[in-house]
Amino acid sequence: MQKIVFSHEVLNLLNGRNFASLATIMPNGYPQVTPIWIDYDENHDLLVNTALGRSKERNTIINDKVGLSIFSMANPYETASIIGNVIDKTTEGADHHFNKLSKKYLNLDEYPIGKPEERRVILKIRSKKVIYVSIPLSTYL
Amino acid sequence: MQKIVFSHEVLNLLNGRNFASLATIMPNGYPQVTPIWIDYDENHDLLVNTALGRSKERNTIINDKVGLSIFSMANPYETASIIGNVIDKTTEGADHHFNKLSKKYLNLDEYPIGKPEERRVILKIRSKKVIYVSIPLSTYL
Repeated sequence: MQKIVFSHEVLNLLNGRNFASLATIMPNGYPQVTPIWIDYDENHDLLVNTALGRSKERNTIINDKVGLSIFSMANPYETASIIGNVIDKTTEGADHHFNKLSKKYLNLDEYPIGKPEERRVILKIRSKKVIYVSIPLSTYL
Repeated sequence: MQKIVFSHEVLNLLNGRNFASLATIMPNGYPQVTPIWIDYDENHDLLVNTALGRSKERNTIINDKVGLSIFSMANPYETASIIGNVIDKTTEGADHHFNKLSKKYLNLDEYPIGKPEERRVILKIRSKKVIYVSIPLSTYL
């Protein structure tokens, strides 16, 4: 699959303390959408940190097709929509990665309400299509 | 289909100037997610205002299964995830409804950058399942 390089605008959205909304396909065919923390790696693959057994993780075992959107918390009319595939899942480094996200989103070195029984896992998403949209409505916020 | 009545918490999320993220299923099977304005009617069916020919509208002609999430702009750790079906589409009253949404989200009586060639349409979504989650992280915002 051809790799996508994110534009400067999309990187800004991903780098900010902005929340993405991830859709995975449930076994009954409905798209389930949940707000998530978002990260990406040096190859511009998206990284989603979840726990083993959560529906996001279970759904993508059966169907690797996902979609997500993200908007700027400062200007929700600046958005990106991405579709892609979960190309890898790993528990290796997932605790460390979760703490990295806690730093980004909560400014804490460690996630404050972790559940010891949970096993964290990183879903790696390769983008297939990225659409960036900026609607000129920020004046009216 | 059994009708769902939204809880007080979910109504608060829907009534606020909060953005939802709607997933529709594309013909190639990927879930496409886009940020949207959200409304609901007296039957607690969700109302999404879009334009004829947009992918949201085209996708749901073929597949009426949709999902969406919404979070509070004041506290993104307060969220609702909903799955449901598009049970009706109508252009009747859609311009008026779009202006109602412009009032809610932009505090304007009329959408300021409307495209005359666009035909607005209301997608009516009947919820099948609603999950409300409040993660106690608002201290760290």
